[in-house]
Parts: sequence; structure tokens; C-alpha cells
Amino acid sequence: MANSRYEYVRQFESDDRLLPSTWLVVRIDGQGFTKFTAKHGFEKPNDIRALHLMNRAAMTVVEHMTDIVIAYGQSDEYSFVFSKDTQAFDRRASKLTTLLVSQFTSAYVFYWHEHFPDTELLFPPAFDSRVVMYPSERIMRDYLCWRQADCHINNMYNTCFWTLVQRGGLTEKEAERRLRGTLSRDKNELLFSEYGINYNAIENIFKKGSVVIRDRELIDVVDTVGKTSKRSRGVVRTLHCDIIKDAFWASHPEILRGKLTRAQRKEERSRQRGIELAAEASTATTTSEDLKR
Amino acid sequence: MANSRYEYVRQFESDDRLLPSTWLVVRIDGQGFTKFTAKHGFEKPNDIRALHLMNRAAMTVVEHMTDIVIAYGQSDEYSFVFSKDTQAFDRRASKLTTLLVSQFTSAYVFYWHEHFPDTELLFPPAFDSRVVMYPSERIMRDYLCWRQADCHINNMYNTCFWTLVQRGGLTEKEAERRLRGTLSRDKNELLFSEYGINYNAIENIFKKGSVVIRDRELIDVVDTVGKTSKRSRGVVRTLHCDIIKDAFWASHPEILRGKLTRAQRKEERSRQRGIELAAEASTATTTSEDLKR
Amino acid sequence: MANSRYEYVRQFESDDRLLPSTWLVVRIDGQGFTKFTAKHGFEKPNDIRALHLMNRAAMTVVEHMTDIVIAYGQSDEYSFVFSKDTQAFDRRASKLTTLLVSQFTSAYVFYWHEHFPDTELLFPPAFDSRVVMYPSERIMRDYLCWRQADCHINNMYNTCFWTLVQRGGLTEKEAERRLRGTLSRDKNELLFSEYGINYNAIENIFKKGSVVIRDRELIDVVDTVGKTSKRSRGVVRTLHCDIIKDAFWASHPEILRGKLTRAQRKEERSRQRGIELAAEASTATTTSEDLKR
Amino acid sequence: MANSRYEYVRQFESDDRLLPSTWLVVRIDGQGFTKFTAKHGFEKPNDIRALHLMNRAAMTVVEHMTDIVIAYGQSDEYSFVFSKDTQAFDRRASKLTTLLVSQFTSAYVFYWHEHFPDTELLFPPAFDSRVVMYPSERIMRDYLCWRQADCHINNMYNTCFWTLVQRGGLTEKEAERRLRGTLSRDKNELLFSEYGINYNAIENIFKKGSVVIRDRELIDVVDTVGKTSKRSRGVVRTLHCDIIKDAFWASHPEILRGKLTRAQRKEERSRQRGIELAAEASTATTTSEDLKR
Repeated sequence: MANSRYEYVRQFESDDRLLPSTWLVVRIDGQGFTKFTAKHGFEKPNDIRALHLMNRAAMTVVEHMTDIVIAYGQSDEYSFVFSKDTQAFDRRASKLTTLLVSQFTSAYVFYWHEHFPDTELLFPPAFDSRVVMYPSERIMRDYLCWRQADCHINNMYNTCFWTLVQRGGLTEKEAERRLRGTLSRDKNELLFSEYGINYNAIENIFKKGSVVIRDRELIDVVDTVGKTSKRSRGVVRTLHCDIIKDAFWASHPEILRGKLTRAQRKEERSRQRGIELAAEASTATTTSEDLKR
Repeated sequence: MANSRYEYVRQFESDDRLLPSTWLVVRIDGQGFTKFTAKHGFEKPNDIRALHLMNRAAMTVVEHMTDIVIAYGQSDEYSFVFSKDTQAFDRRASKLTTLLVSQFTSAYVFYWHEHFPDTELLFPPAFDSRVVMYPSERIMRDYLCWRQADCHINNMYNTCFWTLVQRGGLTEKEAERRLRGTLSRDKNELLFSEYGINYNAIENIFKKGSVVIRDRELIDVVDTVGKTSKRSRGVVRTLHCDIIKDAFWASHPEILRGKLTRAQRKEERSRQRGIELAAEASTATTTSEDLKR
Repeated sequence: MANSRYEYVRQFESDDRLLPSTWLVVRIDGQGFTKFTAKHGFEKPNDIRALHLMNRAAMTVVEHMTDIVIAYGQSDEYSFVFSKDTQAFDRRASKLTTLLVSQFTSAYVFYWHEHFPDTELLFPPAFDSRVVMYPSERIMRDYLCWRQADCHINNMYNTCFWTLVQRGGLTEKEAERRLRGTLSRDKNELLFSEYGINYNAIENIFKKGSVVIRDRELIDVVDTVGKTSKRSRGVVRTLHCDIIKDAFWASHPEILRGKLTRAQRKEERSRQRGIELAAEASTATTTSEDLKR
Repeated sequence: MANSRYEYVRQFESDDRLLPSTWLVVRIDGQGFTKFTAKHGFEKPNDIRALHLMNRAAMTVVEHMTDIVIAYGQSDEYSFVFSKDTQAFDRRASKLTTLLVSQFTSAYVFYWHEHFPDTELLFPPAFDSRVVMYPSERIMRDYLCWRQADCHINNMYNTCFWTLVQRGGLTEKEAERRLRGTLSRDKNELLFSEYGINYNAIENIFKKGSVVIRDRELIDVVDTVGKTSKRSRGVVRTLHCDIIKDAFWASHPEILRGKLTRAQRKEERSRQRGIELAAEASTATTTSEDLKR
């Protein structure tokens, strides 16, 4: 039974390499998450456990795929931006989208119990993904602006909607009707005057979503004679901040600089090979370690 | 913060609908499974628990995606064949490949503990996937022949290799050298004369791989006055048989007939909505229920 | 000035090979032909010189591209069907479409004066082209049915329209209004009862369009001692007949048989190298030679 | 005979729109030009009539397709660069490549007798074409550098080769052997010391190729009372200059500026509608009018 007579079927495979020198954005989205969140009793308008789980899964992806320069998530979606010069998987669209979504999903199920210790996972959830090429830095940034603006708009709406339902006693239909045609300032006013809620005081993770970046941190290293010194080390970090304005990009120039240096790349790889992270968390940020606690 | 000014970024999305009237084959493959199997102590040359877990994940996919007419798996790979007339996800390549691999991976992690009750899953595994179009039934069948012939060739090699190592005490290098240039009959002879192993007597799941199909089964239905009657019902079933010769296809004409009837489709959907299966297992086949026991 | 530093730009070229084992149909269409026909005084509803010129150009293409098994033309469009197993130009979409349209256009301008001896070509005309893959013989034939049905519908409409304008003295607007909502039998009736025209008696080239095929013909060969014998030879021929019903396909089984034999292919190539054709024309058909007279 | 039952075949057409915001380069190439030039007695190493004919055809294309910002030609190839923001033909690859190559070929045959008044065109020539996307100005310019460097290298080689054959009396094989392994300075030396040829003094059209751009020119306009005034007008012009260094780009900033203004575009369209050009030629440049003389 020689296999060679059947091998001609490989000729039907197509080459799906993406255009060089373009920023690649892979976005994953939860499939059927309306049902999934209902079955698992997610809190409304936002479930902090679910967002942390999404961030944990995203960080796993970023730790594995070292050419991802930034990721942005909100609700049940996450976008991953690959450096425009990435040669990861030969830039093959199917490899990039399927491995990424598989890694993400796998981590989501794997870490479920850490974030939902009291809720059993009833059935395996699924995500889809797609890749889009962006020829310039400006357009890639506009893509991220689009997602963060979307987060803001949805969160303000959902905050009002669920306040009207949960505290105002309106039915979902009534709440929808009440909000129809309202502008941003109307919603701010409604929350404040009727329910005493200052929208600006709401946590950034809800208003701004989550931003995963690679960062550097100083750690103490103790040598063989007991002397302690400082060493800089790469770390994957989650922030909850504005990425629309220039300030964020000015303070993280390495994101747009594109490729990692050979040294950074080497370090990243060694981390993947299982070197454990000792993470340092600031009040405004989350790292893998926080999520594991 | 109007979102509309950023929406132009959607114009960079491309249309990836596949050619109508072609058989679509999505193949998933384990990524880095050499390391994964080593870390989790998989038995060599085959780990029956791992194969059952693969089958369990594949059946979950087939239960969800009702236009899959047959699936075939071996080792850490699985191929899913969609009816040539499928309109699932508008035949969009990225949707088909990413949702399928996500569902598969999710089920793999979700059902891990059922098949590896004594082995902790150490880290989240990942799979990739790709889709290929086949314009005719003959070529699609040749694709499946290619995979099953590959299963046979690999299994015979691996059986010899690990017998030489485990029972013959050869190093892996020595075993490799011993097998270089041997033909099928040489390997058969080696197993039989030196180790008393009749290759033909080895379980079909190892020699033939696994075939997931939709089947019908008769169940007893008890009505309100206690009278029992028989009813036919759809079931997803795993076989371990030859799919290269015509006999298999002659006895399962519905696979090539393409589309499910409207009634079958409706039934499939209702099953997905959570109606529990009471499965009936024959000695030669496995159903989801067996795997759960 | 080494060129190598710039050669990286070749990496941006993409692979556009079409799916194997599918029928490839390349259709060319006149660009801006409303203006072109007006400027060059084409007769309405059909200009026989223009149709012969289109056929001449199409035959040139068929003579050059030996994997074309049939071509069909009407008005200012022509469709060329490549055998499903063609390996011409490695099945690269851009090569197939651009070379074909270039060859067609080139022949159109080159042979213009033969078909329009009294009309100067005022400016260079242009055509576009595209390729579509059809996975089965049935669908490829339905494509040709689509074009021939379109020819029939347009020709009947145009015949009525221009009869009303040219003989009935209606304005174009009035003619359009008169025909709105009429069925096929209404148009037949209008032509017959008001103008004494029997639509069925109109020439087939107008009603059915033109079909270019490869055929065989017997020619007399005189040997060195003056003895005459018959020899069969390939010829490109234009017919004007129905290709929707099965009869045409039954009488030309070689079209669907796909690939030419090696011998036929060799012969075709030698013809391209400039061996002149002595063509034999039947009353119902046209060959290159007729068109040149 | 309703046509609607066949219209489903349109579903097999695919969407081939190119990525927005990328420079589109369409390159056409002569097919089988070794034979074509031999049959038509082209002079070696360069035939000035043939180059002028290529330029004439390219200018026709640039006059028709108003989003082309620059074109570059050498030998039997020509590259056309579309503005990165062009929406011409909805950026559909097949439309862009096929219309362009058809227009080019058509003009080549149409204007043949103007440039080869004493040479009959023996058969219709053909060109192929393809489109490549370039995500940045730098890469697009590197593409043009690649072609111009290629022109230089080929021309120097061909000049030496044909000098050795035509004046040195070497066979083609001997000439090839003589040049094997020589560098640029060796070839310069060979030409100068053995044949008294100063390579630098050779005409730029041979050394640099041809560059087609849109330019402005001042013309005299006479009003109804006989008063003459100056008016600026768009013109398509052919230059023979370096486009590798920055100087060219600095002196033609409009090329990289991308889109034409609405006014320029309107003017271009009106020109296409047939308004005749009175062209003004400088010594270093050629316009359509020169070529027609």
C-alpha cells in the first residue's frame, strides 16, 4: 500500500501567505457567548472574573507568539497585533489564525477553574478568528481605536441598561426603549441624577478594556557569593488605559519599532521553555502572576 | 467619541469564501505534540487513552457542525469532510477552520480528565488547522485514502521501532538503523519471528485509525400508557475500519449523497440544544457515551 | 549598481494558481463598446462584419492556446473553456487572463481591415477578462447555457427594438416602452404580424451566437510520385448551433473528454509554428480561411 | 428559455479586490518576443523604433487610466504604478491587469505602422501582465530601482555582446564566453579600449529606460477678441533619466502625493474624451505628439 499514489491530493492545498511588510491583526471572538454567559451566570453588565480569564488566555497567547507587539481585549473578543516584519509561520494566514485561536481557547478552558472556582464549566466554549492586514502604522492604530471606542460605547450603554433593569426595576424592553436615541451626555446624566453613579469613577477595565504588552522589569538576582544585583527582564503585562491618544504610544515606543531584537527574541523563547515568572504588579496593572493568585 | 471615523478599517477585511460545490476538508494537527506527549507520559507506540480523547473531541465537533459527513483521525491529527454543498458559515475559510479547531481544542481540554483520570494536564495544548477544496468525490476519497495509508505505514513502523526499543533493548538510534530500507513484509516478519507478534492481530484503532460518521439507531420509546415502541434516531459513531476500498462507501451511501435532509438537519440541531443521548454501542464501534463511561 | 539589494521586492508577488481539476472559463468583454460601435458605424441590431471579426480573434486565441476545448461568443463578449486538467501557464490566473485578452485584442486590431475594409479603425479598442473555476462538467455546461440563453434573449429584444425604430419610425424611447413587459411569444407575434418577419428564419449566428471548437477534417495529400491520398487533420472551426441541449455534446465527445492526446497536442503546436491551414468550410460553419477571404 | 435557472453559475466568481492603501504596480511583458523581434528584424542591441512604440503604447495607457502616477519601461516590459489610494475598477486585480494589458497591446498594434513604416506587422503580438501590491512608498520605489538597475545591467551586457558580434566578428557563443565573469568596469574598458565606445555617451533611453509621468505645460490660448494668454495644462510626458536617486522624486513631488486633485482628474477625463493635444516637446523628453511625427 504505497502512499505515493494518493499524494497528488496535496496539490490542492493553496498558498495563503500574507503580504509582507503589513501589520497583521488577528481578532478572536466568542461564538454563541450570549448563551454561554447565561448558562454560566456571568454578572451584568460586566463580569470581572470573565474579563480576567480572557486576559489570562490572551497573556498565554502573547507569551507563546513572540512577534505579537500588543493585544487589546474587551467583552468576549481579543485582537492581537503582529509586528509588520513578522515571519511567524511564514506569515501563513491559516497557521496564524488557527494556532492563535486554539491556544487561546485551550488556555480559556485550562484556566477556567482559577477564575471561576465556584462555577463548573458545563460545556466546551469556542471562539472564531480572522486575520486582517494593515499597510501602515496609522491604519493599524486606527483599528485599535475602533475597538476601544466600541468598548466605551458598549460599556456606557450596558451600564445604563443594566442599572435601569437591576436597580430601576424596568423590564429589558422598557430599558431599551428608555435609552433609544440618547447621547453620551444623556447617559452620564441618567446614571448620576437618578442612581448617583459617576460613570467616570467606574473601573478602567470596564471603560477602557485590556491592553496586553511586553514590558521590562527589574528583579533582584543573587550571585554565588550572596551578592544581590538588579537585572532587567521581559514580562507580559496587562494595562487598562487609553490607547487612542498619542501618549500611550509615545511612552511605549518599542511597540511600533516593530521587530524584537535578537536578544529579546532569545529571551522570550527561553521563557516559553518554562522558566517561571516572578511577576511584579503595580496597582494599575495585572500580570500573569496576579491572575494566578 | 464617535466610532464611525474608525470604521474604515473594516475595508481591509477580505472575502475568503471557498469555491461552491467542492468538498471541503479541514484537517487539524497537534502543535508541538512530541513535547506534549513526552511531558504527559503517553504510551508508545500508541496511547489508547489519547486516541479516545481525540475521538471524543472529534465527535464533539461533528455533533456541532452538522454539514460534516465524515471525519477521519490518526495520531494527533483529524480530518473533517464537509458536504460539497455545505453553506456553513457562508463557506468562509477562516470561520470554518478557526471555529472547528477551537471547538476541537476546547473539547480536548474539557474531556481530558475523563480519559486521563490519573494524569494532570500540565499546560494547554494547541492544534492548527487548514482547509482544502476537493472538486470531486473521487479526489476527496483519495484524500482520505492518503491519510489512512499514512496511518498504516506509520503504525507499522512505530510498532516495530518501539518493540525493538522496549523489548529488544535497542537504543532509538539502533532501532532506526535496523528498520532503514525495510519493506512492509520485512517488518511483518521481524515482529512475528523475533517477537511472536502477529501484526494483523493488532487492534484496528491502531492499524486503521478512527472514522467518525453519522448513523441511525433504534431506541425504545415508552408512551404515556406504558407501551414500548421502536424509534430511529441519529447518532454520531466512531468506527475503526477500512475506508480505502469501495465496501465502506457502498454500505454508507448517505456520506456521498451530500446534504442532510431537512428533517435530519432539524434533528441534529435539536440534539445540539442539549437533548441528552442514550447511546447504543456495538462491539466494533464507539459512541460518545462509551467514551464517557 | 548591484541589483540584488532590490530583489526583495519579488517577495510581494503572490501565488495565484487556480484549483486543480476544475474547468477554467476565461470570459473577455469589450470595454466601452457602446461608444466604440457608435463611432465605427456598426449596424443594428447586429453587425455581421463585427461578429466575424470577433470570431476571427477568438479562433486566433484557440489556435494559440491548445488546452481550450470550446469557446462561445456573442455580441462583444467571448468565453473560452480550458480543459479541467490543463496545466497551461501552471494554471496561474493572471497569466491565463492577461495573455488571452492580449492575444484577443491584438488579433482584433490586426484583422480589423479584413472585416472592415471600408472603415478606418479610429482608436485602439480594449477588452477586459476574468477567470472562473467550475468544479464539474454539469456546472461548466450550465455556464455556457447561461451565455447562450442570454444571447437569445438579447437578440430577440434587439431585433424587435431596432425593427420598431428603423422600420416602424418609433423613437428609441417609444420602442423601449412598447416592449416593456412583453414575453417571447409577444415579440415573435409583433415581428411577424406587423413586419412580416419570421424570427425563426433569422440567421443562426445572431440567434445562437458562435461556437469555436477543434475538429478533424480530411484533406488530400499528394506524395512524391503524384499519388493522392486522404489524411485527417485538426482544424479550428466556428459553428452557430445550439449548445444547451445534449445533442451537441453527444456529437462532440472530445470536448468533455478533457485533455488532448499527446499526438493532438504535438500537431497543434506544429500548427502554431506557422504551418498554414487549408481550410474546408461547410455551409453551416466558418473557418479561419473563410473569414480571410 | 428563462435565463434565471443558469444564473447560479455567477456564484463561482470570486472577489479579487486588492488590499486598500497599497501601491499597485502592474507590469506587462512581451510574450515570445525573442521570436517576434527576430521575425520583424529588430536592430541589436536596441531598436529605437521598437522602444518608441513601447512608449507610445504606454502613454496611451497612462492617458486612459488617470490613477497611474508613473510608468517605467525597458526592452519589452513596462511597469505602471497606481496611486495607493486609487479606487480604479474597485481595485479588482483582474480588471486592472486585463484592461491595462489589452489597452497596451491594442495601442501597440494600432501605432505599429507609425513607428515601423517600412516593416509589415506579420502576426499579432501578445503581452502578459500581473499586479503586485506594495505597502509603502519606499518599497514601491525599490521596485522601480530594481527595474532600472536591471535595464542598466542588461544594456551594458547587450551593448558589449552585440559589439563583439557585429564589429568584432565573434560568434554569439564566443561573445558569451568572452563576457562570462566580467564586471561593469571590465565591460566599460572593453568597449572603450577595443572599440572606442564611451558607454557613458550612449543615449539615455538605452541606459536608463523610459519614464512616463504626468506633467504641466504652458500653452497660448487666444480669446474671442484675439488676445493671447498663457494657460497651464496637463500632459503625459516620457523622460529618460535616473529614478533611483532622490533627485527625481524631489523634483516631482506630485507622484508620491498620491491622488490627483478633483480638478486634475476632471481635466484628464475630458482629455480622454478626445480633446486633441498640442504638445510641446523639450529636447530631453518625448510626448505623444513627437512620436506621431
